[in-house]
Amino acid sequence: MEFFFTLKTAENKARRGELATANGFIQTPAFMPVGTAATVKAIKMSDVKKSGTEIILGNVYHLMLRPTAELIERLGGLHKFCGWDGPILTDSGGFQVMSLSQIRKISNEGVEFSSHIDGSKHFLTPEKSVQIQHKLGSDIAMIFDECVQFPTTDEKAKNAMERSLLWAQRSKNAFIKRDGYGIFGIVQGSTFYNLREISAKKLIEIGFDGYAIGGLACGEGQKTMFEVLDYSCDFLPQNKPRYLMGVGKPSDIVGAVARGIDMFDCVIPTRSGRTGQAFTHNGAINIRNAKFARDEKPLDEKCTCHACKNHSRAYLHHLVKSSEILGSMLMSEHNIFYYQDLMGEIRKAIEEKNFTNFAREFVVE
Amino acid sequence: MEFFFTLKTAENKARRGELATANGFIQTPAFMPVGTAATVKAIKMSDVKKSGTEIILGNVYHLMLRPTAELIERLGGLHKFCGWDGPILTDSGGFQVMSLSQIRKISNEGVEFSSHIDGSKHFLTPEKSVQIQHKLGSDIAMIFDECVQFPTTDEKAKNAMERSLLWAQRSKNAFIKRDGYGIFGIVQGSTFYNLREISAKKLIEIGFDGYAIGGLACGEGQKTMFEVLDYSCDFLPQNKPRYLMGVGKPSDIVGAVARGIDMFDCVIPTRSGRTGQAFTHNGAINIRNAKFARDEKPLDEKCTCHACKNHSRAYLHHLVKSSEILGSMLMSEHNIFYYQDLMGEIRKAIEEKNFTNFAREFVVE
Repeated sequence: MEFFFTLKTAENKARRGELATANGFIQTPAFMPVGTAATVKAIKMSDVKKSGTEIILGNVYHLMLRPTAELIERLGGLHKFCGWDGPILTDSGGFQVMSLSQIRKISNEGVEFSSHIDGSKHFLTPEKSVQIQHKLGSDIAMIFDECVQFPTTDEKAKNAMERSLLWAQRSKNAFIKRDGYGIFGIVQGSTFYNLREISAKKLIEIGFDGYAIGGLACGEGQKTMFEVLDYSCDFLPQNKPRYLMGVGKPSDIVGAVARGIDMFDCVIPTRSGRTGQAFTHNGAINIRNAKFARDEKPLDEKCTCHACKNHSRAYLHHLVKSSEILGSMLMSEHNIFYYQDLMGEIRKAIEEKNFTNFAREFVVE
Repeated sequence: MEFFFTLKTAENKARRGELATANGFIQTPAFMPVGTAATVKAIKMSDVKKSGTEIILGNVYHLMLRPTAELIERLGGLHKFCGWDGPILTDSGGFQVMSLSQIRKISNEGVEFSSHIDGSKHFLTPEKSVQIQHKLGSDIAMIFDECVQFPTTDEKAKNAMERSLLWAQRSKNAFIKRDGYGIFGIVQGSTFYNLREISAKKLIEIGFDGYAIGGLACGEGQKTMFEVLDYSCDFLPQNKPRYLMGVGKPSDIVGAVARGIDMFDCVIPTRSGRTGQAFTHNGAINIRNAKFARDEKPLDEKCTCHACKNHSRAYLHHLVKSSEILGSMLMSEHNIFYYQDLMGEIRKAIEEKNFTNFAREFVVE
């Protein structure tokens, strides 16, 4: 199957599309649950599938350290290893070496870092990251980039963006093209218009199968993020998918779709599920709150997840308060169902040219 | 439905029976997964059901403290609260107040103790324990008893056994008989033949719907436990179910069935699942062992659980080594499937009059 993006319809900047990959189709706008260590935390892959999820995300950084890309390749690739037969996008490790490991040295060549697991020393380059993603069998590989923290200076953001462009070219060069597999560039430049513009233009010159927007959801706030998206999406071609990395809360997603984003990933639904937060059509709730101790209603009347079909808020309150694993399981699965329901509503609204109303009335935080 | 035990067939001392309760039938010998805090740890109730489990166990001690029996009653009882529509047996709290709480005072009246959760003071009596089990809606209630640690003196064992007999009578008096609901006595007496004999005879005089053997699997070892079972089962009536509390490893179960036991409960399959131990038809394995890192086989070729149908040992090794919740989930579920498969094999062997051979050839530890 050819790696191909079809823009089916649009309403203002909001886009309704379909991405074809080696392991299947993805209806966009799409949310990708994060499967960092070859598992979407606390959810069986069969239940991830039931939620309507069409693509999951894996991480070069975590998988290269444990169990290693070589082992996963030997065992038939990441899809077979983790039991997920749909598309997989892998992040290149650029963000994680900055945020999780102890950096020893960054040069134009690459990043030398110490593992957060055992302190062992590793060296990651654009070539190596892309080779690892090839070994994993990722349907969508990401270029290896340098991320800067927010806030940063114009100069630091410029330097990292320019290095990321060099690394983007090297990532592209290292990418072995196979039918159905693609590689995405990552637009950097922090909150600086001119840097985002240069980054996008140069990436388009190199030529990628899709374009991600990186370096957001890093503390700049929703207003600033939306401002960056307002102009950044305009730099990108219409005929390629756009992926906003690491975003976000439901309202972030709705606002980003309104600005032209097609794909999202975020740990929020699973991480907040493990701490007792549930997203519902009436807003987010913390199930630990004492008012839920006697609440016989499901988390969300509109939800079809296992918890909402079988259990009361009172039971979930009890499980989470008792630190029972089943609490983390049910809450995480519910939140993934909520996110996928939301994406379905977003897609339907765009199809029906009703997304502007949908977004205006959307209140869930 | 009448609470009724039918002895279908037997081979030597091994019994194949059926227990009818308010919430359904139980084929014996039966294994009851432990659902201490209204959850079989790390497994959805729908998957507990898929394993072939017909009855689960709950605990008065944990549930009275959190979320409280009153709340569970208000929410429609334990079955509805936890989403399990089959029979439930509840332990009376006698064992747990000894092993988990800080005891403040034991008298003939009852036990005063401090909660292991918040240190709050509570008082549990035979009457109160049985009332709590009524509120929970337990198909099978257990008498409130006094447990002694192993090893103990003849005198201490005698005193506790005699107090337990007083409490057994009070428990029976407090039990409100309803169609399909029963209460079991608990034979005590540590490893002393004469105490076990007195305990059993007096309990039979009081009259119960079934008889448990308590105070074993407390460190006395399998050989001593089997010796106690060799004579203790002979004290019990043929037409009532016999329940060996807190047992055990697979070989304990096979040996206890051979000695006339019908019902079991134990945390071993779920607890050892969470620490990486898997039971298989070829023996127990610790999936953390490095030799499983590249093992593409399922945990157990004969098993039909989710993990064995979908995942390799290498993947489970990775999950457990990475402390991923999914590792605990899949390993716990597998072990419950293993235990229920074992019970099915035991029942079939007795039906086919092949159990003596089965038990002789059984090697799993």
